[in-house]
Amino acid sequence: MIKDGHYREADGSESRLSRASVGRLSLYLRRLEGLLREGATTVSSGHLGEALGVTDAQVRKDLANLGNLGQAGIGYPTRELVTAIRRALGIDREWSVALVGVGNLARALLRYRGFPQQGFRIVALFDADPSKVGQQIEGLTIYGLDQVPAVIAATGAELGMLTVPHEAAQGVADALVAAGIRGVLNFAPVVLRLPAGVSLVSVDLAVQLEQLAFLVQLGDVD
Amino acid sequence: MIKDGHYREADGSESRLSRASVGRLSLYLRRLEGLLREGATTVSSGHLGEALGVTDAQVRKDLANLGNLGQAGIGYPTRELVTAIRRALGIDREWSVALVGVGNLARALLRYRGFPQQGFRIVALFDADPSKVGQQIEGLTIYGLDQVPAVIAATGAELGMLTVPHEAAQGVADALVAAGIRGVLNFAPVVLRLPAGVSLVSVDLAVQLEQLAFLVQLGDVD
Repeated sequence: MIKDGHYREADGSESRLSRASVGRLSLYLRRLEGLLREGATTVSSGHLGEALGVTDAQVRKDLANLGNLGQAGIGYPTRELVTAIRRALGIDREWSVALVGVGNLARALLRYRGFPQQGFRIVALFDADPSKVGQQIEGLTIYGLDQVPAVIAATGAELGMLTVPHEAAQGVADALVAAGIRGVLNFAPVVLRLPAGVSLVSVDLAVQLEQLAFLVQLGDVD
Repeated sequence: MIKDGHYREADGSESRLSRASVGRLSLYLRRLEGLLREGATTVSSGHLGEALGVTDAQVRKDLANLGNLGQAGIGYPTRELVTAIRRALGIDREWSVALVGVGNLARALLRYRGFPQQGFRIVALFDADPSKVGQQIEGLTIYGLDQVPAVIAATGAELGMLTVPHEAAQGVADALVAAGIRGVLNFAPVVLRLPAGVSLVSVDLAVQLEQLAFLVQLGDVD
């Protein structure tokens, strides 16, 4: 699905959006929503890029993919740009999410305001631990793994978040896929194998710390 | 510090490693450590890339930056490759980490095995809540924010992880930087401004879900 950092469309052509530019679009969106709350009706590429450490040339290049929204000397209309980015990212609608593995990380994710703000709604909780099954958290009941097919069908969850121990991750992912889940956000430190047609994004928190260590070390050069 | 996805060295030249390739190096490392545990003394670029969805050409390109380790028909020596990647990433030594904001996410991070495995040791905890100060978690005492300079100095923490509410993040980051922290891993959904010479990696969990939604939507094309 991903080749040299670019997404391949179903017809074999490459998407105009690279993984890096998708990541930047999310960051622009977050910044634009803040500017919108502050009442800014237009924004320049320089202003948008500045806080994110992105050059204005890169901002203009990223946003050119979304249509001709920018006007020389005026900038981009903030609200229209938010709408265009949400459409490009596929979040101009709600996404229902099932969460498997109700530990500390899951509790943090359940209370994370950024998810509902961006249209992601956690609608189902699962855990393998019988002592947790039946408990309620944030208004949701925890179900056992045997209930995955029934609850996914009933809630219409499309995406799955895995916060299970690494040795359980592949089995749980397989069960979610069999139940109709179309994308998995994996927090378990393991490489998952998913069938074609099911998307995967992995969040390896040690990778993030490694990137930071690398940057700090680069600064050591001088 | 970051320009068009490439790192700039202190002398103004660009690093040979792009942000994307640094991310892939971390993933190769994770896979190689698994192969090493399974007893594999050599590995081919195709085998290494396969599980990660990366082409073998891309693997060879990424690893070429680390020196001439690969041999045609034999592959890469697993252990030497692990050592070379750890050196390139700056994790061929221990890094001490201070964690600020002891909620659910912090508790999950404290128990996350991937950090100590990769040489990241959490050595200090801070929280603004007086009812938490003085408590012990995983053998560490929680200190108040007024203790940041003294505890950072005493522990020698170089990196900071922020798991505080977004409205508190900039103030806490400033306090860490004043105390000598050289890099910040930020989980708060806010754009931080840090002085030159202090590195920043932000983990916006909604961005990860947005990337997943984008991929699932792409799959809709067919």
